[in-house]
Amino acid sequence: MTLIIDCHGHYTTAPEAHTAWREAQVAAYRSGQLTPAYPDISDDDIRDTIEKNQLKLLRERGADLTIFSPRASTMAPHVGDEAVSLEWARRCNDLIARVVGLYPQTFVGVCMLPQSPKADLAGSIAELERCVNELGFIGCNLNSDPGGGHFQHPPLTDRYWYPFYEKMVELDVPAMIHVSGSCNHALHATGAYYIAADTIAFMQLIEGDLFKDFPTLRLIIPHGGGAVPYHWGRYRGLADMLKKPALASHLMNNVFFDTCVYHQPGVDLLAKVIDSKNILFGSEMVGAVRGIDPETGFYFDDTKRYVDALDVPADQKHAIFEGNARRVFPRLDAILKAQGR
Amino acid sequence: MTLIIDCHGHYTTAPEAHTAWREAQVAAYRSGQLTPAYPDISDDDIRDTIEKNQLKLLRERGADLTIFSPRASTMAPHVGDEAVSLEWARRCNDLIARVVGLYPQTFVGVCMLPQSPKADLAGSIAELERCVNELGFIGCNLNSDPGGGHFQHPPLTDRYWYPFYEKMVELDVPAMIHVSGSCNHALHATGAYYIAADTIAFMQLIEGDLFKDFPTLRLIIPHGGGAVPYHWGRYRGLADMLKKPALASHLMNNVFFDTCVYHQPGVDLLAKVIDSKNILFGSEMVGAVRGIDPETGFYFDDTKRYVDALDVPADQKHAIFEGNARRVFPRLDAILKAQGR
Repeated sequence: MTLIIDCHGHYTTAPEAHTAWREAQVAAYRSGQLTPAYPDISDDDIRDTIEKNQLKLLRERGADLTIFSPRASTMAPHVGDEAVSLEWARRCNDLIARVVGLYPQTFVGVCMLPQSPKADLAGSIAELERCVNELGFIGCNLNSDPGGGHFQHPPLTDRYWYPFYEKMVELDVPAMIHVSGSCNHALHATGAYYIAADTIAFMQLIEGDLFKDFPTLRLIIPHGGGAVPYHWGRYRGLADMLKKPALASHLMNNVFFDTCVYHQPGVDLLAKVIDSKNILFGSEMVGAVRGIDPETGFYFDDTKRYVDALDVPADQKHAIFEGNARRVFPRLDAILKAQGR
Repeated sequence: MTLIIDCHGHYTTAPEAHTAWREAQVAAYRSGQLTPAYPDISDDDIRDTIEKNQLKLLRERGADLTIFSPRASTMAPHVGDEAVSLEWARRCNDLIARVVGLYPQTFVGVCMLPQSPKADLAGSIAELERCVNELGFIGCNLNSDPGGGHFQHPPLTDRYWYPFYEKMVELDVPAMIHVSGSCNHALHATGAYYIAADTIAFMQLIEGDLFKDFPTLRLIIPHGGGAVPYHWGRYRGLADMLKKPALASHLMNNVFFDTCVYHQPGVDLLAKVIDSKNILFGSEMVGAVRGIDPETGFYFDDTKRYVDALDVPADQKHAIFEGNARRVFPRLDAILKAQGR
């Protein structure tokens, strides 16, 4: 028996009042007014947005549990200042905690962070602690480019990030490296910016020696690792040219890819070139691509079908669906064990 | 009988005097001095750099002809101003013309352009005309991000680019969309910037309707199309969400990918999801990744081996190695026919 754990779900269907408050918050910041009061959102409001979307699709597609975080494209740390980001992150994370409270068997929380282009990571560290220790969250989404599409932040191997990594290690939580909406009109968010940022993140890790300093740090690169598995030979070759160890030891004890690749040949390639211990089932659902593939008649983002169809041994499939998520997210494993699962 | 045409080769081994002149040119620009005189480079200097590198590898690997352009990473349009770029582009293109003159059976020229972050495309149009009409070149490398790694240029569908496209159509030459070295320390050139830029370019094309305005324009996205084939489902789905036609008609009469993907599973995926009429054999040789793959014992960038091993019908393989290059580069076809090939 395998639990089907989707490691990558966002609350893209959050109640309208929450989204409207964000708009009012940003408008107030821009006009120098006080932030409006956060609205009352009832449990029924939340149930309504979850049951007809994520929960419905989970049941239809046969997944058991989603590692759930605020909508990625609206994290938008480039909007406003750090105080704006802090309040927005708290509201978003609190909303995730309410979803988890209503459906503790089906959702587990991952937090967004109050990053801001000019801020250090002190606020993010505090919010991570709050979310893990007070809200019971099991990980975080770390934005490698809080400027929103011009890649002006230090690479992930820079010491700028180290205080945050230290807190992650202390709390024993992983991060998914996930950028947000693009404020660069040359970069479409889900079609260009996300995939580029994923690829860039991996190359930054190749160039550095981050996991020498943090041997237990765990990072998930979403969207199937960007371009990386497709160009696996290039990355193995570049590591060699840069006199780095082979990727298996240099990065792949610490870096994981999800299965958010929306066609069978892509997931086949992922499973062929990347060790199954490094692959976590994910769908990014309800997310980037919501339509039905005319070639298959199924939703593009029904990635469980692609993983089900993989020609890999049962123990590897179990690892992709469940085992790796329990290992990468030890706090998830603890929650599931406490639930008798 | 199939000619093996490598659509993507750079003069990465240019004579030392040429490279030293570039350094002197940039130093002179920065210190406000006059540009030094361009050095004498003998035919033997050129033969020496070609015969022990590109020509040796072509022969060893069994290719017949390379579509050859100046080194991509040192085009560096973000260095200096437009006048600096113009002189550098002319010197580089003239050097390519000399290689072609020495080895007319083996090399055909493609030009770099004197782009500059703040310049319009008038200088690039003039240099393209010069290279095609006077030097016999058959195409160009067009840099979608001349700023060098922050993606601040208009998307490829913007009217900024239209005068250049008009000239391309008039001359009946294609462009390879190819960025240059990165001045962004977060983006490794060949491991992050190139692959990200390829992916971003394709998504820009999805969002626009460029080929409605230029139905005969032809663009090659190198490095196997960046992340695109691996995420082909995502791109098909995004085109659908954006209410665009299916990619086959929206883009794939005009967009082509090369085979610069440095392992067999990647090239297998490329050939599986992308119609063979859109794939051009390329190696990017001598280029980004120069080592030997310990898993195969062969050079990573010996991409002919991967294409040879493809399980596709002979007519499709002929198209990938020869037919598509003749179709995408009509001036190449004319040159080959004049040579009786």
